[in-house]
Amino acid sequence: MYRSHNCGELRISDAGSVVTISGWVQKSRDLGGLTFVDVRDRYGVTQLVFNIDENPELTTRARKLGREFVVQATGKVRERSSKNPNRATGDIEIDVDQLIVLNESKVPPFTIEDDTDGGDDLRMKFRYLDIRRTPVQNNLIFRSKLALETRKYLDGQGFVEIETPFLIKSTPEGARDFVVPSRLNQGQFYALPQSPQTFKQILMVAGMDKYFQIVKCFRDEDLRADRQPEFTQIDCEMSFVHIEDILNTFEGLVRHLFRHTLNMELGDFPRMSYDEALRLYGSDKPDLRFGMQFVELNETVKGKGFSVFDDAELVVGICAKGIAESYSNKDLKDLTEWLQRPQIGAKGLVYVKYQEDGSVKSTIGKFYTDEELLALGQKFGAEKGDVIFILSGELEKTRKQLNELRLEMGRRLGLMKPGEYAPLWVLDFPLLEWDEDSGRFHAMHHPFTSPKKADISRMMDGDHETMKSLRADAYDMVINGAEIGGGSIRIHDRALQSRNFDLLGFTKEEAEAQFGFLLGAFEYGAPPHGGLAFGFDRLCAVMNGQSSIRDFIAFPKNNQGRDMMIDAPSPIHDEQLKELCLQIKIDKM
Amino acid sequence: MYRSHNCGELRISDAGSVVTISGWVQKSRDLGGLTFVDVRDRYGVTQLVFNIDENPELTTRARKLGREFVVQATGKVRERSSKNPNRATGDIEIDVDQLIVLNESKVPPFTIEDDTDGGDDLRMKFRYLDIRRTPVQNNLIFRSKLALETRKYLDGQGFVEIETPFLIKSTPEGARDFVVPSRLNQGQFYALPQSPQTFKQILMVAGMDKYFQIVKCFRDEDLRADRQPEFTQIDCEMSFVHIEDILNTFEGLVRHLFRHTLNMELGDFPRMSYDEALRLYGSDKPDLRFGMQFVELNETVKGKGFSVFDDAELVVGICAKGIAESYSNKDLKDLTEWLQRPQIGAKGLVYVKYQEDGSVKSTIGKFYTDEELLALGQKFGAEKGDVIFILSGELEKTRKQLNELRLEMGRRLGLMKPGEYAPLWVLDFPLLEWDEDSGRFHAMHHPFTSPKKADISRMMDGDHETMKSLRADAYDMVINGAEIGGGSIRIHDRALQSRNFDLLGFTKEEAEAQFGFLLGAFEYGAPPHGGLAFGFDRLCAVMNGQSSIRDFIAFPKNNQGRDMMIDAPSPIHDEQLKELCLQIKIDKM
Repeated sequence: MYRSHNCGELRISDAGSVVTISGWVQKSRDLGGLTFVDVRDRYGVTQLVFNIDENPELTTRARKLGREFVVQATGKVRERSSKNPNRATGDIEIDVDQLIVLNESKVPPFTIEDDTDGGDDLRMKFRYLDIRRTPVQNNLIFRSKLALETRKYLDGQGFVEIETPFLIKSTPEGARDFVVPSRLNQGQFYALPQSPQTFKQILMVAGMDKYFQIVKCFRDEDLRADRQPEFTQIDCEMSFVHIEDILNTFEGLVRHLFRHTLNMELGDFPRMSYDEALRLYGSDKPDLRFGMQFVELNETVKGKGFSVFDDAELVVGICAKGIAESYSNKDLKDLTEWLQRPQIGAKGLVYVKYQEDGSVKSTIGKFYTDEELLALGQKFGAEKGDVIFILSGELEKTRKQLNELRLEMGRRLGLMKPGEYAPLWVLDFPLLEWDEDSGRFHAMHHPFTSPKKADISRMMDGDHETMKSLRADAYDMVINGAEIGGGSIRIHDRALQSRNFDLLGFTKEEAEAQFGFLLGAFEYGAPPHGGLAFGFDRLCAVMNGQSSIRDFIAFPKNNQGRDMMIDAPSPIHDEQLKELCLQIKIDKM
Repeated sequence: MYRSHNCGELRISDAGSVVTISGWVQKSRDLGGLTFVDVRDRYGVTQLVFNIDENPELTTRARKLGREFVVQATGKVRERSSKNPNRATGDIEIDVDQLIVLNESKVPPFTIEDDTDGGDDLRMKFRYLDIRRTPVQNNLIFRSKLALETRKYLDGQGFVEIETPFLIKSTPEGARDFVVPSRLNQGQFYALPQSPQTFKQILMVAGMDKYFQIVKCFRDEDLRADRQPEFTQIDCEMSFVHIEDILNTFEGLVRHLFRHTLNMELGDFPRMSYDEALRLYGSDKPDLRFGMQFVELNETVKGKGFSVFDDAELVVGICAKGIAESYSNKDLKDLTEWLQRPQIGAKGLVYVKYQEDGSVKSTIGKFYTDEELLALGQKFGAEKGDVIFILSGELEKTRKQLNELRLEMGRRLGLMKPGEYAPLWVLDFPLLEWDEDSGRFHAMHHPFTSPKKADISRMMDGDHETMKSLRADAYDMVINGAEIGGGSIRIHDRALQSRNFDLLGFTKEEAEAQFGFLLGAFEYGAPPHGGLAFGFDRLCAVMNGQSSIRDFIAFPKNNQGRDMMIDAPSPIHDEQLKELCLQIKIDKM
């Protein structure tokens, strides 16, 4: 027996018991005749004590223990003279009379503490040491708990977890597939699923009624920060449902998760149309922890001789409370330059300061009277001490820029409070997006999304312009400005699905080759159905108020798609290539 | 709202309520003025009734419903005049006054009944129709429940479910990897995991203490019946454990699963050494639902002038109870021929019949007296009416052949009772197997398995012959003759792991290239650890008394590794190949 107790569970009530613990040496200290060794495992830290006078041989051995040695210690629990109130086991220590070194350790390349001195690359290469740190362990434990609670809730709602295959078929639309050469079918390839979309729809046609799966998905994209080539979804689908059934079910899921992992009751899930979200926040995933809604000013500010506004498609502003005195001209200049960086690309920033003394100060004072500027302020509910920021230009760009500014002001003013969660549903997305570059429509959600019922007949026989106005039965769940899930009511009618493939530029042959099985399934009694998928990595991060999903993945890949610890990907043997009928041909550039 | 109730929940107490149900038309019957339509969903079947006199238009429409049409019906629940006691909803019917056809269906290519007329290929191509059948749905629902109960139990035991990566590194030892070309790292490949073995060990080094995962694994093998290229494991690992801790934990898991899915208390889990299992049953996965243990007869039968026995390495038999009268000479001849088929390859079959009249009849009567044959019978506890079957030859082959005969007699005599479960642990496997063909050792379990503590020093410095006698700290769980799980205590010492790689024929460079990260991790305080993995597909099948795992997989592949429904694998576009720097070169033969 390696242990009678773990390193986190001994209490003052255990005093007098003889116990055995095992774990890693966190640190040790020699104080006169006493040697203290902190031993750590997943559950906590327990202090061992050795007395040189009472047991010189044992204490000498204890003094030689290095950091991260694995030890097993047996001894009597006793009350500490100097207690540590910050540690659950801080009232006791173990007076050791048997010590076994189970394994030694080299000196780790970074400290195993909550705040480590290890850089990202080093932490990833020695991920087994990084994970020993409590914050990382806690993230993984949280993730496990979140998955279990997801399953408990969905099971309670009658969902069946069904594993869909990983070796499927490549569909070159959308993101790039990872492919897997088949040895038994020479020259052919499987693809790893970007999502189990078609399979979950097939399961609805198969009468499974309510399906879910917590499942790995794969996308071979050029990796941006915080994208992973493999990621995890909570993937769900239901039959015989309207939008309302789905929103209720998954609002329920998220409430359950917050309740059972964070012990927190979520407030309302407001609903907002896509158009409204863009109009009020310039984003389809607004952070509602704070207001600072957009106010559109075209009708107010145009025609006063300020050509920048007069020529703009959109003039729109936000009001930052209480910064009129604290934001100097220098601060405002810096903010303007921040907005002018290529990542955001604003031309300039107009501000109106409503100063504490009642005066108004603005970059556009030349064009507008103080009265006009005060009236402008009223549109925002601006008070003394507030500053209004105004951007103008093309509608889409300007909204995006002002969204960035709003979020930045939210950060600066401390309005994105950690521990506060503002969920919402965004609804009524456009069905199709016209892409000028490729001269074709793209599915805003995906090719299986149903138009709203009222739009079906317009979709079946409308003209090109009509297609741009179609609305989808699609929805996103957003929390604190992050899209954590999204889905739609699906098409379940072969003719409508075929029409959608036509609009998306598939030839009949392509549609048949790639999705023939689904179109076929629709001819054998497909029920009305819909569903959604949550980004599980993202959900973990958002619930913990963190921005990086990487901290919630045990073995993430870096931005080049490499696993630094195992050093993958890597070359394979010629024999393997030959069996797969493959040759490598790298074009020199 | 598509439904107020599902098709399985209405009862006599609902009579008088107005309800709406949705589902598939199972069948319809016209009886005089009444039309009855059975509507089915995952939850059950409910009878709709239409009256031509009361509602001719509606009834006419109902009469046109085809099998598998998707319908929504609203009406009043009423007590049936002719009840169906075999159906949970059999006391009621719905007197429909509103009928909506949600989708039509072509005539399905096979019947959607418990026993279908569809062949395997057709069922797989139209898997969405096959899954509509209740037995298949029940299998998938069972699987989901089994997974959830696995998670509940392991969570309760302090295990953390941690997702390990799917895009890992190819290790050409053992079974063949599926590989995934990397676009961002030209000419390099990921591999899909054959199991998360090294990652779960890394998680132990990382201090996660108790890990599990229900996870897909991949092996590119030539597919035999009932092998799948992707399959699912319950994968587990624990730190600071001896064998006993692991056996207790996972015996507990399996007890929990039987209790919570089959409502059944499992009996004892006997333990048997590998040697004992081979000696008594000729197999390392004996079916203990029945006895029929092997009795070795070398000392009893040799030296009596019967050269077949005298020359044999092993003479061994089993006793079949009560078939002396019912098994004719013809039956025994057929059985002998069955044993002589190339799949089994026995040379012949010796039998001794203990007839009801006290006489003995045997193929070896010429060589042994009746007294000798009676004495032989006593070794088996044979009584009047029993027959002893004896095989002889090389030890390993003969044991395998007698194992086949024992199982066949078990089947014929009805000793493998459905609903009866006999679990056991098989322990003390050899560590290494000598392979004559390749002239090297193979790991019997895998290269990370620890020898038994008592064998470590012999392993570090013993000679070639010594290696053959090393025993591993490995264990298999067997139920009803199927290996449902297996594992081992792992090596956690770098020197011992290196020695094992040496013995298995790895060069230092190969070991470093493939497993350097693990060897490195062992230098930073690796704890003692061990674990096991259950074959989840197999466990589902065994618990349901079925032999094929395919029936418990939603979308299985066929023996050529193809998904018949989506028609994968398939060729990919030249552009995809080019991006991956790959060319296909199929050698014409």
